[in-house]
Amino acid sequence: MAHFLDEKNSAETVIGRINDDECTPRFRQIMAGLINHLHDFIKEVELTQEEWEIAIDFLTRTGQKCTNERQEWILMSDTLGVSMLVDAINNRRPEHATQTTVLGPFHVVGAPELDMGTNISLDGKGESCHFTGRVLSTDGTPIANARIDVWSDNSDGYYDVQQPDIQPKWNNRGIFTTGADGAYNFRGIKPVSYPVPTDGPAGEMLNGMGRHPYRPAHTHVIVTAPGFQKLVTHIFDGEDPYILSDAVFGVKESLKAPFTKNDNNDCEWHCAFDFVLCPD
Amino acid sequence: MAHFLDEKNSAETVIGRINDDECTPRFRQIMAGLINHLHDFIKEVELTQEEWEIAIDFLTRTGQKCTNERQEWILMSDTLGVSMLVDAINNRRPEHATQTTVLGPFHVVGAPELDMGTNISLDGKGESCHFTGRVLSTDGTPIANARIDVWSDNSDGYYDVQQPDIQPKWNNRGIFTTGADGAYNFRGIKPVSYPVPTDGPAGEMLNGMGRHPYRPAHTHVIVTAPGFQKLVTHIFDGEDPYILSDAVFGVKESLKAPFTKNDNNDCEWHCAFDFVLCPD
Repeated sequence: MAHFLDEKNSAETVIGRINDDECTPRFRQIMAGLINHLHDFIKEVELTQEEWEIAIDFLTRTGQKCTNERQEWILMSDTLGVSMLVDAINNRRPEHATQTTVLGPFHVVGAPELDMGTNISLDGKGESCHFTGRVLSTDGTPIANARIDVWSDNSDGYYDVQQPDIQPKWNNRGIFTTGADGAYNFRGIKPVSYPVPTDGPAGEMLNGMGRHPYRPAHTHVIVTAPGFQKLVTHIFDGEDPYILSDAVFGVKESLKAPFTKNDNNDCEWHCAFDFVLCPD
Repeated sequence: MAHFLDEKNSAETVIGRINDDECTPRFRQIMAGLINHLHDFIKEVELTQEEWEIAIDFLTRTGQKCTNERQEWILMSDTLGVSMLVDAINNRRPEHATQTTVLGPFHVVGAPELDMGTNISLDGKGESCHFTGRVLSTDGTPIANARIDVWSDNSDGYYDVQQPDIQPKWNNRGIFTTGADGAYNFRGIKPVSYPVPTDGPAGEMLNGMGRHPYRPAHTHVIVTAPGFQKLVTHIFDGEDPYILSDAVFGVKESLKAPFTKNDNNDCEWHCAFDFVLCPD
């Protein structure tokens, strides 16, 4: 093993310093992979000293932009497709099961437990929508006692927690529990598209790549049921103009829902979507 | 091109979003390289959701550890061998020219311009050393009007700027300018090894890999001369116990200097080292 780092041996020299007696095998694997790819990347692009300085400043500012309400590193991970890749690796499910997507930063634990049919839109804004469907096992059996935790932005494109002084608490949030038939329904709004925050380093990066910051309209859902794998996903508006270019790469073909004009009841729209869970 | 990201197409899907009309070719090259290697790394190690969360927290804290006096991201770059790799890529010099190494965070512009032979150790601590040598061109010609900007830690292992209330200002710093013979000499101390800061994320990383944080003893030098490439380097104590395991990978074989017991003058040690500069 080389003692002194040069252009050729750099990654192997750094990895060679890992002391296996004091490093877990998993940490060794992660660090070796990281060091190899990091050095390969820098050699491949022949990073200049000035670019390195810009990178140090960028990385520093990304951490410093983070607060209790803002996680710029998650946004960086999201906009680079890393969050969705990690989600994919850790949630390999059969094709006919409902696919997962990113949790996002706006889930809040402890939303109200509501009766089926309740309207979760508390600010009276937006186009009303009736959501209906069933929670099923991959073999088609309805799942009883499934908890469906839903949340979405309001018609201005903001979640309640982003506007605590403007929106009612728990606006567009609620939890519904299925009965023996596995069916659910609730009222809310047809969600709208919105931009991820662009006033930090992730925004600079998107701008530098000529990318827009918008997410297509979606309603978030977490479905849990005893004996089944937790499902964290979105229902997307399949007609949204950003459906093919989600800034965080969260869309999957199977998560595009039809939002249809509704003639049956008090809501302007109807969205039918079944959740298919995998047994544990 | 795929519209929706999956495990197989993830890097190409993210790269596919770059808009070449609004992205410089160089930024495209850097981002495409980064995205490819980042996704390959995550797939290779099959990063878990929990590890991703640890990584987000680690990256966040690294930026938040940075202040005007502390640059944790540079320390991260240094301890992962990235700083030395970038230095190597950007300073390809002939073997017989003096090789470069990292600048480090403790250089201060504006050190005193001193007469040859002056003692730069102002705190009276440590083992005295007489530094001598010449500044030469790669063809062996002595270089006149070469400025040699030197700095080192004191015998407690701290630079003056780290201990503004304890050390005299400009302790172990000075600038010397060569005459027609290219020769230099000054008095100072035999430098001592010291640890990089370990009370932040870089320290956690070193510890996790079972690596020590020490740098072998060294004196920093920047040599500049009209018509020659700037030389940023260290003179290392070749006998230092950490010479083969510098925490920041800064050592090169040709930068190991002999520190010999001195019988010629008032100093305990003698260090002879010539600087060989490349023409512009």
